[in-house]
Amino acid sequence: MVVLAIHGGAGGDGPWGGPTDLDPARIECMQSILANVGKALEDGKITALEAVTEAVSLLEDEPLFNAGRGAVIGADGKITMDASIMNGKDCSAGACAGVSILRHPIRLANHLLKGNWPLMLFGEGADEAGRKAGLEVVSQEWLATPLRWAQWKKWRDSNLRPGATDEDDNVLNAALDHDIEIGPISEFSHENLLEEIDGPGTVGAVALDKEGNLAAATSTGGMTGKPLGRVGDTPLIGAGTWADSRVAVSNTGVGEAYIRTCAAKRVADLVELANVDLETACNMMLDEVEPFGGRGGIIAISSKGEVCMPFQVTLMYRGTYFKGDVFTAIGPN
Amino acid sequence: MVVLAIHGGAGGDGPWGGPTDLDPARIECMQSILANVGKALEDGKITALEAVTEAVSLLEDEPLFNAGRGAVIGADGKITMDASIMNGKDCSAGACAGVSILRHPIRLANHLLKGNWPLMLFGEGADEAGRKAGLEVVSQEWLATPLRWAQWKKWRDSNLRPGATDEDDNVLNAALDHDIEIGPISEFSHENLLEEIDGPGTVGAVALDKEGNLAAATSTGGMTGKPLGRVGDTPLIGAGTWADSRVAVSNTGVGEAYIRTCAAKRVADLVELANVDLETACNMMLDEVEPFGGRGGIIAISSKGEVCMPFQVTLMYRGTYFKGDVFTAIGPN
Repeated sequence: MVVLAIHGGAGGDGPWGGPTDLDPARIECMQSILANVGKALEDGKITALEAVTEAVSLLEDEPLFNAGRGAVIGADGKITMDASIMNGKDCSAGACAGVSILRHPIRLANHLLKGNWPLMLFGEGADEAGRKAGLEVVSQEWLATPLRWAQWKKWRDSNLRPGATDEDDNVLNAALDHDIEIGPISEFSHENLLEEIDGPGTVGAVALDKEGNLAAATSTGGMTGKPLGRVGDTPLIGAGTWADSRVAVSNTGVGEAYIRTCAAKRVADLVELANVDLETACNMMLDEVEPFGGRGGIIAISSKGEVCMPFQVTLMYRGTYFKGDVFTAIGPN
Repeated sequence: MVVLAIHGGAGGDGPWGGPTDLDPARIECMQSILANVGKALEDGKITALEAVTEAVSLLEDEPLFNAGRGAVIGADGKITMDASIMNGKDCSAGACAGVSILRHPIRLANHLLKGNWPLMLFGEGADEAGRKAGLEVVSQEWLATPLRWAQWKKWRDSNLRPGATDEDDNVLNAALDHDIEIGPISEFSHENLLEEIDGPGTVGAVALDKEGNLAAATSTGGMTGKPLGRVGDTPLIGAGTWADSRVAVSNTGVGEAYIRTCAAKRVADLVELANVDLETACNMMLDEVEPFGGRGGIIAISSKGEVCMPFQVTLMYRGTYFKGDVFTAIGPN
């Protein structure tokens, strides 16, 4: 038995209003990934580690998710991306934060996992390690999309607030000098754009391969308007990502709360040490992050083939490949 | 009852050869911290969070430990420092990586903890947040000591290896252009210098205050010759540092192994979920990191006042304030 589960982020308050104009493209992307990568996993052509690397790379390529191309834009008008990956077979791991020139941050994390040391790199050192490893280098202009610039402008307008220092404003104004193309935005209705603007988008994957090995991977652009150098849970092994011989986990949500609870490792420890089932462990973790403002979701699978994808927000883009069937969903079932 | 425990790093292979010429200064530093901060804790003048912040700040000020002034030097000839802190009272946390201009990286971590968001910053964003917060800014020249340059030169000489690319060599040679003063090195015997060169030095503190709250803090310069942007376990909540209502932990050792086992959170989960005592949990964690090359040590305390400081290497600089008594040690007891 093999399993592949993926997510494209969780978010939103209140009841789900149904798909936006952009959601069909997201669903199509997820279905294609699940069918193709799931099939390769089923046929024993790829390992769990390869499956999550490939699945997350493809999610990074979809501009409507907040990772790789189409990642959200930080306070200074720049895109910086974070990713991590873990191989349950040997608990090897790789992670990177603040990547700004790579098409596939998850492939740098995978490269670091394979090299064993260092496990984690940030900023310029991460970019240069990716370049040296021969990973595809892209420009900031290629990474940024009109939708993300529109979201960034909305963030900036709501942050030119009383209390902002001149220095804050200078950063914002300097970033504004970018040549911002927002043409394609007009293709969508104002209501839908507003929905998109508050949307989620971190991506992740967990897989169980024919050998019974698990792996997990997560990738993100963080949050629109994030301060320079901010690190959320996504690149942190044990917070955003975990895989061992029992479970594989990829989280999405307000990262700080997932860090404060070490959420991904927590699920694994609840299963191993408290002897609870995977679903209970996932829900216990979500209950633990909530007091810290950690509303979000999780995808988790076990070596027994259990799959859990609970979330405590309006929606979570998610899908599974399980026994030959592809399933995808956005809102509550 | 209050408890304060601190460490100045763990390392070395084989039996302990006794104190080096530099060790008396390290012991004196630790004793002074334990006596002063321990007394303030005993008198109820400071919280556990304030105690670990103050203790680690003072360890950062001691150039013989690898944190703050006297941090080790990276591959490119620059010092970059990592730190994290966690308050067990509310599981708030702060962390920074790649700090290069602050005298006390732990104070930036503390500042981020208090601000709640973002929890973690790296690189330039971390430095600037520290500057904006009014923390003391220092130069790279002030941070680097002759001992660290001597260690860096030894590292460089052993790394001008077959297989190094021209680019590697260029980085090394560029760094060599620094004005390196190694005068003070001659005060020590060659043997002692070699011992120092292989020495540890990450610092950390855990505390239990009169209110029964726990806190933990860890700070480091990483490893001599580390690649640009390398992140070890020290700035990672759950790997190098953890504090909750039951236990407080600060780790030291080969960071990657502590990340792969989420070592600090693991100790907390073993105590909470597996219902083992603190000493057993610490030793189980050390057994888990060992297959990953994670030789090092841990200081841990519980809300019941238990103190454990096991290590699996030659030595760990460590000390406690407990019931009015100051205890310090280097080698095995």
